[in-house]
Amino acid sequence: MGSSDKQHLQPQESFGWAARDSSGVLSPFKFSRRATGDKDVKIKVLYCGICHSDLHSIKNDWGISIYPLLPGHEIVGIATEVGSNVEKFKVGDKVGVGCMVGSCGSCDDCTNNLENYCPKIIPTYNGIDDDGAITYGGYSEFIIVDQHFVIRYPESLPLDAGAPLLCAGITVYSPLKYYGLDKPGMKLGVVGLGGLGHMAVKFAKAMGLKVTVISTSPNKKKEATQHLGADSFLLSNDKNEMKAAMGTLDGVIDTVSVFHAVLPIIGLLKSHGKLVLLGLPDKPLELPVFPLLLGRKTVAGSVIGGIKETQEMINLAAKHNITADVEVIPIDYVNKAMERLARADVKYRFVIDIANTLAAGV
Amino acid sequence: MGSSDKQHLQPQESFGWAARDSSGVLSPFKFSRRATGDKDVKIKVLYCGICHSDLHSIKNDWGISIYPLLPGHEIVGIATEVGSNVEKFKVGDKVGVGCMVGSCGSCDDCTNNLENYCPKIIPTYNGIDDDGAITYGGYSEFIIVDQHFVIRYPESLPLDAGAPLLCAGITVYSPLKYYGLDKPGMKLGVVGLGGLGHMAVKFAKAMGLKVTVISTSPNKKKEATQHLGADSFLLSNDKNEMKAAMGTLDGVIDTVSVFHAVLPIIGLLKSHGKLVLLGLPDKPLELPVFPLLLGRKTVAGSVIGGIKETQEMINLAAKHNITADVEVIPIDYVNKAMERLARADVKYRFVIDIANTLAAGV
Repeated sequence: MGSSDKQHLQPQESFGWAARDSSGVLSPFKFSRRATGDKDVKIKVLYCGICHSDLHSIKNDWGISIYPLLPGHEIVGIATEVGSNVEKFKVGDKVGVGCMVGSCGSCDDCTNNLENYCPKIIPTYNGIDDDGAITYGGYSEFIIVDQHFVIRYPESLPLDAGAPLLCAGITVYSPLKYYGLDKPGMKLGVVGLGGLGHMAVKFAKAMGLKVTVISTSPNKKKEATQHLGADSFLLSNDKNEMKAAMGTLDGVIDTVSVFHAVLPIIGLLKSHGKLVLLGLPDKPLELPVFPLLLGRKTVAGSVIGGIKETQEMINLAAKHNITADVEVIPIDYVNKAMERLARADVKYRFVIDIANTLAAGV
Repeated sequence: MGSSDKQHLQPQESFGWAARDSSGVLSPFKFSRRATGDKDVKIKVLYCGICHSDLHSIKNDWGISIYPLLPGHEIVGIATEVGSNVEKFKVGDKVGVGCMVGSCGSCDDCTNNLENYCPKIIPTYNGIDDDGAITYGGYSEFIIVDQHFVIRYPESLPLDAGAPLLCAGITVYSPLKYYGLDKPGMKLGVVGLGGLGHMAVKFAKAMGLKVTVISTSPNKKKEATQHLGADSFLLSNDKNEMKAAMGTLDGVIDTVSVFHAVLPIIGLLKSHGKLVLLGLPDKPLELPVFPLLLGRKTVAGSVIGGIKETQEMINLAAKHNITADVEVIPIDYVNKAMERLARADVKYRFVIDIANTLAAGV
């Protein structure tokens, strides 16, 4: 048997829940994974968060879904087997896997610990792995991942509420660092209080920032300021409130993933302020140029973070007891959870209790 | 006579050419300027560049023009009188005045040498000075300016071709520095080859960058690569050329001041690349969000530069013999020049020979 045949061998039978078509309905799915390679860690999945991307993917909203599609990229669990060349982990370690399981390893981005921007990034699900197999995510019994893409979970970090850090957490943490919005005393706006937004408030507060939540929903005020610890709240459709706050913020993290006006948000920025977009609206936004020039302002994007930075974020989260606010669900609630997620009816992240409920669904 | 009356005294009779209404026609205009104050420099104007803003202002394109409007903010000349507390300059010095003649002096931007972003900036023309008078620009015999806003012109810098540095030059120089697009070997795109664009090519080449000019006009190729020293040329409406160049640039300086698609330009950027907008289109641009996120790219603005940085830019220009390509004209050609400027019929900047031609026009 040649080595290329070996690469394609998928000897480990596994199961999970997958969508079969763009109806997006998830149901039990038997499949197989590769043998645990020299550099691989085999991970028994304990919990897996439900990211909004999972919803987009099962419904083929972005037109790139490959079915059966088995989602999940906020995966935490226990290492149950390690390859002979694995040095970072040992059996029994608490570990996590986020949005990617591979990259080229040699491009500028990979050598700069920015695997997330590698053109050959292999997503944790709906990707093509090095051996040609479609990648399957964390709504499953176990997963095999190259050690480089495995994150160590400190003992003190709860695994259920800690799962969403691997996508929602790093997605807000990375731009706060990269765009220099991490200095104590800085004033940060957070637009949209969902999975990403509530993590942005928590990380920004841990960094010592003054945080203003900006939302269209007046009923989020109490939640933002009393429950999540934001310093203030701005109702974005109250023109007087917005006008009074003009020119006060050093930066804004905008998590809104539908078309919306950015002119009023840019107006909230001080000169040299930065608006970081993290949501993916389905059509272009309108970019006002005058305020960008006259205040030397920046509109920029960011997507998750590199592996080194993800570990750094997890360590900071453990230190400051930062976790997501989660609703833990059994796997057979997942389709209902997707319906509720579609109407933003969750505070703030569903996490599937895989270990205790997945077997029952098969 | 109270001190407030003194402040409004305008004892120095002067003359220049001003527009009287939004027809924009310039004609001889007698007016007066303030007495030379303790910290003021009185400057005999030798040359004044014609900026595209002058054209917008005389025609009230931005709806903020105050008539009579006497334009000109690329002013070079000789100090003919200095106030008792002026230490930076002496009579006979070659000096320049750019787009601003005052600012508050105490805000964060002013204390950080960014007077250009001070909310109380006093523009060189069409502004309200500290004494309540309307400011008049450089299409005039002389000008009185606080020494802080006066730039020293090194002996080696030609005054006619050096005048446009004060607006076009600093407008491209400042963002190259601020956005870190000034490292030797970096690849820079310059969109639009006019007054700003041709200066961007020259400064970027002096900084050791590889420069690609991007234009809709194929006849600019020879001009860009042979005359201005750009390394390459991209025809922006040639889809194959644009596709082949995708992901190759560290930054782009976009000088286009009409609505245009930025998606293809953002596509030319490498991951983490920066698109700097310097033109002011009359409606919002369409901002594609996917490529911004997936490549962690930035779209940003910038407007002129601070006084300290302007002096630094002038010194660099003198060292590297960087000047604008200019067509020197007499003042009575100015209306014709405005017509030609409106159809971009100039390589690349008109400069009025004030000293030798202004008197004849009165």
